[in-house]
Amino acid sequence: MSQIFVIGLGPGKPSQRTPEAEEALAQATDVIGYGPYVDRVDLPAHITRHPSDNRVELDRARHALELAEQGRCVAIVSGGDAGVFGMASALFEAIDHEPDRWSDMNVTVIPGVSAVLAAAARIGAPLGGDFCVMSLSDNLKPWETVCRRLTLAAQAGFVIALYNPRSKARPRQLGEAFEVLRQELSGTVPVAFARAIGRADERLHLTDLDHADPELVDMSTLVLIGTTLTHRIERPDGQAWLYTSRSVPA
Amino acid sequence: MSQIFVIGLGPGKPSQRTPEAEEALAQATDVIGYGPYVDRVDLPAHITRHPSDNRVELDRARHALELAEQGRCVAIVSGGDAGVFGMASALFEAIDHEPDRWSDMNVTVIPGVSAVLAAAARIGAPLGGDFCVMSLSDNLKPWETVCRRLTLAAQAGFVIALYNPRSKARPRQLGEAFEVLRQELSGTVPVAFARAIGRADERLHLTDLDHADPELVDMSTLVLIGTTLTHRIERPDGQAWLYTSRSVPA
Repeated sequence: MSQIFVIGLGPGKPSQRTPEAEEALAQATDVIGYGPYVDRVDLPAHITRHPSDNRVELDRARHALELAEQGRCVAIVSGGDAGVFGMASALFEAIDHEPDRWSDMNVTVIPGVSAVLAAAARIGAPLGGDFCVMSLSDNLKPWETVCRRLTLAAQAGFVIALYNPRSKARPRQLGEAFEVLRQELSGTVPVAFARAIGRADERLHLTDLDHADPELVDMSTLVLIGTTLTHRIERPDGQAWLYTSRSVPA
Repeated sequence: MSQIFVIGLGPGKPSQRTPEAEEALAQATDVIGYGPYVDRVDLPAHITRHPSDNRVELDRARHALELAEQGRCVAIVSGGDAGVFGMASALFEAIDHEPDRWSDMNVTVIPGVSAVLAAAARIGAPLGGDFCVMSLSDNLKPWETVCRRLTLAAQAGFVIALYNPRSKARPRQLGEAFEVLRQELSGTVPVAFARAIGRADERLHLTDLDHADPELVDMSTLVLIGTTLTHRIERPDGQAWLYTSRSVPA
C-alpha cells in the first residue's frame, strides 16, 4: 500500500532513536534523504536507498510522492526531528502544490529527539523557561527577518536556539547575529556551542555573549543563547552545567 | 555509585520512548516523579517508586539528590522531554542552592520526544519555520510577562506552542492569550488543540484564531498557533494537515 513515513532519526546516537522510527524503517521499500542521514540507517540489501544532496528538499519530496504513487512504501529520513528544519514541511509543501493528486496519500510523521533537545540535555537544562528555535540561514528568508526575530526574541526573554548558524557560504552572519543580540542582552548571558552531540566528534564549548567567537562554530553546531536567568554551575572537575530558572521574578 | 538520571519518557506512546531512556531506567534503584509519570514506567518489584504531587518540583529534586547521596541510582522521570517544562531545571536549581554539597553529583539528562514535537508530527509540519515554546502558566512568572512574550512572539512571526494552557485554577487565561494574539495576528491563522497525542484519549481539533474556543482545552492539551505562512491542506476523508512554509517572502 502506498505509504510515506517521514522519520526523525534523532541526533545520531542509535540509542536516541525511537522504536517507532525503527519499526517504520523496517516497513520501507525505499529510503530517501540527504546522503549523510540515509547513511545512518542500517538496511537490508533489498531496500533501495535514494541519497540526495543538501538543499533539494522539494525535489526529494516529489520523488518520494512519485515512488509512493507507484505503490512503494517510502521512508523520508531527517536528522533529529523531521518537523524542525527537516523534511516534513517540504513534503507537505509538495503535496499542497498538487492537492488533487496527492492529498489522499497516507503520510505518517514520526517525531524524533531534535538536536536542540539533545544539546540542551548535554548542557544541563538551558531550556528551563520559555524558548525559541530559529534557523540562522537566509537561504529561505531575508536576513532582515532573521535580525528582527533575534531582536524580538531577546526582548521577550526567550532562550534562543540557533540551527544552521554558519556555513562556508555564510561565514559572517553568526557574528552579525551576536552583534544584534548584544544590543538587547547583557554580555554575561551564557552561550553554548554544542557540536554533533551524541556522535563521535561531539564538542561542547561554554562561554558568554561577550566572548562568543563565531570561528568556533560550524554547520553541525547548535548555538544556544541564554538569558539573565540562565545560570552556570561550576563543577569540581572543571566542567560546568547551564540551567535556566523556571521562575521569572516580577 | 551515586547517579541521577533525569529522563524524558516521551509523549506517552511506549514506542516513542528512546532505548537510552529504557537503559537508564533499568539501572535505577529509585524512580521519582509526578505520580502519573512514575505510573507510566514498568519496573521490577524491587525498585522503589517515589510518586509525588504536581508542583513540588524542588522538593522532589532535593529528595532525588539525598537518595543519590546515600549511594542510590535515582531516575527522575518527566513526560516528553525533561528539559522542556520538566524536572531538569528544578534539579539543577536544587544543586545550585548547595553547590558545595552537590556540584560533584553524577547527573545525566536523557532527552525525550517532547509533547510539542509529537503534536506537530500528528498535525503535519506546523513547526516548519522558526517557532517558540512557552508555558502559559503564571505560577512561576507574572501574567504580564506571558502577555508581553505572546505579543513579541507574534510580531516575530514565530509559530507559538503553548504548554500548560489551562487548568481548573486558571480557566480564563487562554482566552486572554487569544485576545492578545488577535491584536497582532490575522484571525485566519490556523490554531490546533492537540490533546494527549499518542495516548488512548488523544484528541485533535483544528480551527483558526477567530474561532479558537478555550473551552475545548484542558491541561493535557498542547495549543499551537500558526502564522500567515501556516497552510491547511484539506484531505478527501474530511481530515486536514497543517504545515508552515519553510520560506519567508521578502
